[in-house]
Amino acid sequence: MINSAIAVDRKKGTARAVKFFDVNKGDEIVVGHQGVRVVPVQRATTHTDVFQFINTVIDADEPKSAIIRELAEDLRHARAAKGKIAIVAGPAIVRTGAGEHLVRLIQAGYIDRLFAGNSFAAYDVERALFGTSLGVSPDLAFARGGHENHMRAVNAIREASGIASAVEKKILTSGIMHACVCHNVDIVLTGSIRDEGPISGVTTDAIEAQKVMREKLADVTHVILLAAIRHSLAVASMLAPTVKTVCVDIDPSAVEKAIEHQPLQSIGLVTDVEPFLRELADCLTDSGVRD
Amino acid sequence: MINSAIAVDRKKGTARAVKFFDVNKGDEIVVGHQGVRVVPVQRATTHTDVFQFINTVIDADEPKSAIIRELAEDLRHARAAKGKIAIVAGPAIVRTGAGEHLVRLIQAGYIDRLFAGNSFAAYDVERALFGTSLGVSPDLAFARGGHENHMRAVNAIREASGIASAVEKKILTSGIMHACVCHNVDIVLTGSIRDEGPISGVTTDAIEAQKVMREKLADVTHVILLAAIRHSLAVASMLAPTVKTVCVDIDPSAVEKAIEHQPLQSIGLVTDVEPFLRELADCLTDSGVRD
Amino acid sequence: MINSAIAVDRKKGTARAVKFFDVNKGDEIVVGHQGVRVVPVQRATTHTDVFQFINTVIDADEPKSAIIRELAEDLRHARAAKGKIAIVAGPAIVRTGAGEHLVRLIQAGYIDRLFAGNSFAAYDVERALFGTSLGVSPDLAFARGGHENHMRAVNAIREASGIASAVEKKILTSGIMHACVCHNVDIVLTGSIRDEGPISGVTTDAIEAQKVMREKLADVTHVILLAAIRHSLAVASMLAPTVKTVCVDIDPSAVEKAIEHQPLQSIGLVTDVEPFLRELADCLTDSGVRD
Amino acid sequence: MINSAIAVDRKKGTARAVKFFDVNKGDEIVVGHQGVRVVPVQRATTHTDVFQFINTVIDADEPKSAIIRELAEDLRHARAAKGKIAIVAGPAIVRTGAGEHLVRLIQAGYIDRLFAGNSFAAYDVERALFGTSLGVSPDLAFARGGHENHMRAVNAIREASGIASAVEKKILTSGIMHACVCHNVDIVLTGSIRDEGPISGVTTDAIEAQKVMREKLADVTHVILLAAIRHSLAVASMLAPTVKTVCVDIDPSAVEKAIEHQPLQSIGLVTDVEPFLRELADCLTDSGVRD
Repeated sequence: MINSAIAVDRKKGTARAVKFFDVNKGDEIVVGHQGVRVVPVQRATTHTDVFQFINTVIDADEPKSAIIRELAEDLRHARAAKGKIAIVAGPAIVRTGAGEHLVRLIQAGYIDRLFAGNSFAAYDVERALFGTSLGVSPDLAFARGGHENHMRAVNAIREASGIASAVEKKILTSGIMHACVCHNVDIVLTGSIRDEGPISGVTTDAIEAQKVMREKLADVTHVILLAAIRHSLAVASMLAPTVKTVCVDIDPSAVEKAIEHQPLQSIGLVTDVEPFLRELADCLTDSGVRD
Repeated sequence: MINSAIAVDRKKGTARAVKFFDVNKGDEIVVGHQGVRVVPVQRATTHTDVFQFINTVIDADEPKSAIIRELAEDLRHARAAKGKIAIVAGPAIVRTGAGEHLVRLIQAGYIDRLFAGNSFAAYDVERALFGTSLGVSPDLAFARGGHENHMRAVNAIREASGIASAVEKKILTSGIMHACVCHNVDIVLTGSIRDEGPISGVTTDAIEAQKVMREKLADVTHVILLAAIRHSLAVASMLAPTVKTVCVDIDPSAVEKAIEHQPLQSIGLVTDVEPFLRELADCLTDSGVRD
Repeated sequence: MINSAIAVDRKKGTARAVKFFDVNKGDEIVVGHQGVRVVPVQRATTHTDVFQFINTVIDADEPKSAIIRELAEDLRHARAAKGKIAIVAGPAIVRTGAGEHLVRLIQAGYIDRLFAGNSFAAYDVERALFGTSLGVSPDLAFARGGHENHMRAVNAIREASGIASAVEKKILTSGIMHACVCHNVDIVLTGSIRDEGPISGVTTDAIEAQKVMREKLADVTHVILLAAIRHSLAVASMLAPTVKTVCVDIDPSAVEKAIEHQPLQSIGLVTDVEPFLRELADCLTDSGVRD
Repeated sequence: MINSAIAVDRKKGTARAVKFFDVNKGDEIVVGHQGVRVVPVQRATTHTDVFQFINTVIDADEPKSAIIRELAEDLRHARAAKGKIAIVAGPAIVRTGAGEHLVRLIQAGYIDRLFAGNSFAAYDVERALFGTSLGVSPDLAFARGGHENHMRAVNAIREASGIASAVEKKILTSGIMHACVCHNVDIVLTGSIRDEGPISGVTTDAIEAQKVMREKLADVTHVILLAAIRHSLAVASMLAPTVKTVCVDIDPSAVEKAIEHQPLQSIGLVTDVEPFLRELADCLTDSGVRD
């Protein structure tokens, strides 16, 4: 694993991987490469657990339905066992119209934490208030006002002093952020130099944001990284090796990079995020039969 | 348009684009660049026809459902008006499990011609006979026999002396090729240096294949290019400028290249082929409500 | 242009594009789409200025040497005319070994501002102090110590209280950061949630960073965006429409996105950053003849 | 390895990988997966042979110069030991202006076989006769005549009854094809459905082409796959496992796919083909010092 070290406990006779930020004064750390032999884990050729599969990346030209069904099964067990499921969400979820499927998952109790950038929240609020994304409506016709809607959405939340408050005041009555507030999903929003005007509640300082992210990831058992490569890599580098990780992105290189942080407990799907979320929500909710 | 020329008809006072292979002795062709002024077509900002849209490529992070519904509407009109719809199909259709959706479109009468490579047919037959793709079953577990199934499928068709004959002899009883034979879809299969053992009926000579392709494209009104970039570019270069063209591929560059041959009558979608075909078939057939 | 508006000056009878953050109280802004007709600029078919070229993106399979020579010529004029040239630099510059070429450009006075992330600086310092990138030496053999070198580099700068100070104390005696300090290049470093331990002098707050970036971009005439897509998009969105912009990246989509912010004064090259910088530095410096 | 089987020689007590087309009647082939244990080869962490390196793919953001130097060293040994070096060449070589570097390698005796498509030859001849690629000159200005030059080049070779004959008649006096004829490089040209008018000497039948390719690859010791993904995959699937294979392409997925056919003797570089060939030719020829 990149950015990890091997900590040895001489009393117990055990060794474990530790991230740099988890090293404590006095820990005994393996230094150098001499004398360390790496034995690749023997993967099963028969298929048992979706996260211990022989191929970790499902390419664009490979079937995904069976994997999504197994993933749904695993998430169902996780929810029953009081596991904590975190999602890292990119703006493409809102823009492609996949928000409604994510809302279904939130309503059914499958999401405990949501990590996203300022722009994800801004897109979601623009969609909820105006029905557009950067002024473009879902049928791709330009709405009157164009990019203006995006700025109005940001300003509406700022005026209400934050998302939770906008929900309380009935300014924000639908969308992903609204569902998170209503179903007690922890929202962790971080800023970036690409943002246009931060929404209240966004952590704009990178160091502070990392601290919050680590805290909110500490007890997580499953992480789903959705079309948000930069954010996903930041989150992936903070995970304990035992956290089950799914990455979905249309860019094969992005999936490879996110997955390599969790080589033994991860699965990557090269696909469009909208049909992935639709199919996952169909598997996990009653509204699976589409009208 | 690349590989086209401007033919002028002095009597009628008109000019039109002609492909090189359509130029006849005696045609008057514009030579040189001097005196030619290119006026870009003023695209509508309000949305009328899906093929004359302001943006021709729908990116991975843009919504696709509305476009797919409009495309379905257009295909419904085309079928009613006795238009001819051709499809160029890549192996990913079979491998991702999208074959069943293509079969629904064939059964409902939406496909008149199918253009594909030898390997597409081989994948489809392997799936129909053994349930696998290169020995891999849909849940991505390795089947017994592995790659062997692929060779057995090719050999089964060779032994039956072709696909139509294999359908007649009840050797091939399901899949896309089977549906094409049963619903009178013209199958145009071409060979490539990457093929492993050609199926009977595949045109292996490139020049002969081009001749057949041009004939079978002559009266086509709509072309759908699905996850088959090389084949799609060959077909796109043979189309009259009036043929409505849709290209679906997960690689943005592939979509751009296929679309630029038909700049005024085309739409490209950067997405996974399986959910695209599922949604299109849901729009166009009764079996749209999923169980 | 995205995120811009049209400001009209009724007295002068002129109109100009303004970015949202440049709008002042009292400015008259065009609202709505009605009555606005967009006339695409008629590009020259004969080649005059490299930035007003008929094709703005040079693809991987197109020749780049002539464009690089013309770009060099333009930069030579810019330097003579006291223009300000800014560079946005990604870690791949250091990792591919292109740092020495960038140093040559800095030494010859072609760079006035350098924008980068914390990790770019950390990679450059690791290279300068240990000769490695994430512990990997230029011949791709793993050095003793591995990832450790990266952390040591970060710590060395922290201990010296910053890059300028490390140069002064002769701790840092080579590399890009060193060249910047020695040749009075303004260094603007910003943090991100992916960083491992910020170097002193890095602005970690996104809002503060944007403010600094805008100030340092205000008088810039040329911007070169090098293999740093996220940072490049942030910078591109802050540029006046007259700033000449070059984007170099190996990912075609990244180049397209960066370029579309500056549609009339930009050129994109889909290529590897190392040979681009080598060729540009060869054109602009005496050390062009390689040994 | 895909499309291979394990052939056991009971007398000798040995096993080896055989491609399907190399299996002879009577060979004993391992069937099924039971009882087969795959032990991954323990790669050296210290760097010995460039083809047995710990990482087989050098990404866009990794240094390439050291690898290219080692590759040059290996090719120098291969030439001295009378090894046979084959190249698979894509049109981007001609279009990017890398043809001159390939010519240097041919003149220095580093290429024994050249595999390409019809369009590669057509581009090279267009460049040699008119100085353009699809009518575009190296400084990217459109030449008079446009795409016309490409057709004229094809016709010039057809009229001369082939490339060798055009060289003999002094019609073709420069370029890659010319260098191949002059230095006894075997040229293996194959057709495709995307070609515009085949040049004399091109094998247009896919099955016949495969037969010729296999014969010409039989004694090859090194294969260099350059920016020609489809052709490269066809060639890679025909190679004995001992053939040292290099793949250079700007598309990471293309490199991965080409390399996986030769997992133990291959190296992939994600980079632009022009600088790669320039640097390789600089390493291997006296003309390395550029003016």
